[in-house]
Amino acid sequence: MKSAGPSKMLIVGSVALDNVRTPFGEVVEALGGSCSYASVSASYFTKPAIIAVVGGDFPQKYRSLLEKHRIDLSGLQVVPEGKTFRWRGYYEYDMNQAHTLETRLNVFGDFHPVIPPQLRKASYVLLGNIDPDLQYEVLDQLESPRLALVDTMNYWIEGKQEQLLRVMKRCHLVLLNDAEARQLCDTPNLQKAARQILKMGPERVIIKKGEHGCLMFSKDNYFSAPAYPLEVIKDPTGAGDTFAGGFLGYIAGARRLNESTFRKAVIVGTAMASFTVEEFSLERLARLKKEDIVKRCRELKDQTHFPRVEL
Amino acid sequence: MKSAGPSKMLIVGSVALDNVRTPFGEVVEALGGSCSYASVSASYFTKPAIIAVVGGDFPQKYRSLLEKHRIDLSGLQVVPEGKTFRWRGYYEYDMNQAHTLETRLNVFGDFHPVIPPQLRKASYVLLGNIDPDLQYEVLDQLESPRLALVDTMNYWIEGKQEQLLRVMKRCHLVLLNDAEARQLCDTPNLQKAARQILKMGPERVIIKKGEHGCLMFSKDNYFSAPAYPLEVIKDPTGAGDTFAGGFLGYIAGARRLNESTFRKAVIVGTAMASFTVEEFSLERLARLKKEDIVKRCRELKDQTHFPRVEL
Repeated sequence: MKSAGPSKMLIVGSVALDNVRTPFGEVVEALGGSCSYASVSASYFTKPAIIAVVGGDFPQKYRSLLEKHRIDLSGLQVVPEGKTFRWRGYYEYDMNQAHTLETRLNVFGDFHPVIPPQLRKASYVLLGNIDPDLQYEVLDQLESPRLALVDTMNYWIEGKQEQLLRVMKRCHLVLLNDAEARQLCDTPNLQKAARQILKMGPERVIIKKGEHGCLMFSKDNYFSAPAYPLEVIKDPTGAGDTFAGGFLGYIAGARRLNESTFRKAVIVGTAMASFTVEEFSLERLARLKKEDIVKRCRELKDQTHFPRVEL
Repeated sequence: MKSAGPSKMLIVGSVALDNVRTPFGEVVEALGGSCSYASVSASYFTKPAIIAVVGGDFPQKYRSLLEKHRIDLSGLQVVPEGKTFRWRGYYEYDMNQAHTLETRLNVFGDFHPVIPPQLRKASYVLLGNIDPDLQYEVLDQLESPRLALVDTMNYWIEGKQEQLLRVMKRCHLVLLNDAEARQLCDTPNLQKAARQILKMGPERVIIKKGEHGCLMFSKDNYFSAPAYPLEVIKDPTGAGDTFAGGFLGYIAGARRLNESTFRKAVIVGTAMASFTVEEFSLERLARLKKEDIVKRCRELKDQTHFPRVEL
């Protein structure tokens, strides 16, 4: 899978240093950001490249962690005199809602993605949850990606909806959560929301429902995927990015691109996200074996299987 | 399936006349109540008997509807001078929450379930969502049911928890929704809640999650079932009772009682509930064909299927 040529998969987003507190503990200056989670997740299936920015203070140990996962860092801008993006937040007992205490954009505030020439032919592109204008800049630098996936959040749906819709129109796949789908389409019904989003341009939409799994829609297909059951979630940070990275990474490493591939990719993304939330930061995600992933996918299959009903 | 002998399945609960308003319309004095939904749902798989009470004003057309579905009405008490239980409520746009405008218990206020002698050997018993003290009275009248299923609601969890726990201890299967499970076990995590409930006595617990499907737990097994996708839900009243009736009815009609049977029963219950909410009252539920049910179960299978993941 990890070929010697240029990366087939690009991930654009943030690399951050996180301070996170949950009922299960706390980490300080831990590796975070959508690009970090997504790229390490994808690295188990393909050789991803990241397009992001860090400051001169970005710890060598985190750069080494990314390198160890053979992530192409040629598109990682370093601003020596600047500081890396920092996020400080906490989760309460129910773990569904991240509470932000502080966001310091630092070098991320002036970030403009620049795709190095050798990466412009990339086939698979993950536009992490950043300003839609930056997502659009990325699309403009690419030759003709086979599959561009856009992730987003309520902040952009509220503040830059027009720009977001322009990006969605050019993407093959849209990823959002249930609350965001309801908000974007102004309906409580997720089936209706998904059909509306498909009319906006993309071929597929995936609606993430957290502990309830996710739904994948295309014109002719509908897939309902479970979540992996966990009794303890230590830190939900990065679950969505891990899902996205695992999903698209699996597709980038697959031979064929059909409904079955997409469904398996959803299951792989689900399994990857379940590892991330079991520990803080990328602690669990960064030390997986392929067998761990296969085992969890098999469990997901067993947990959803039922025989044909005859009456 | 519909054998000539005494019913193998008992359903205890309410028979009501409902006034319901939703964004899609309104019905007045429509057939409702947990027993009505559950028994008609079960009637497609077995010959259920109901234990309930109505007043002298209970319309003949509704009695005929139940008889047409070959439901054993020998345990349906009629209080000629009394009035049937009435519920008046509405749903707003999001359809998740029933708003009660008026509840008139009428004859249901003095109801005590009496199981006719020929029904005391019933193997499958559905204790619909009524006062736990009445549920207990039912268990005391039964010889030794093979599978007793108890349904409940937040009202009893708050007001009669001790009595409810006493019933749960004697039942094989507990059915509740996600909010109720969280409340009963004082944890946001449904996996944890289910494990706690299993320690209270029952062999299985099913947690219903509305539009997100349901989860079934036993000591050695875990099943995650989807919901049937619907773009329009006209009236959610009775969905849970329809699920319970279809679930237990399918089991009562099955030859073997193993994990596969239980999983198929969950899928059948899911399909049945999806029909109920498509129209008001029992309008859709009462005119199903077996092919409709089989078709919907097959769709649920297609919607959740994915191939084995190999890496």
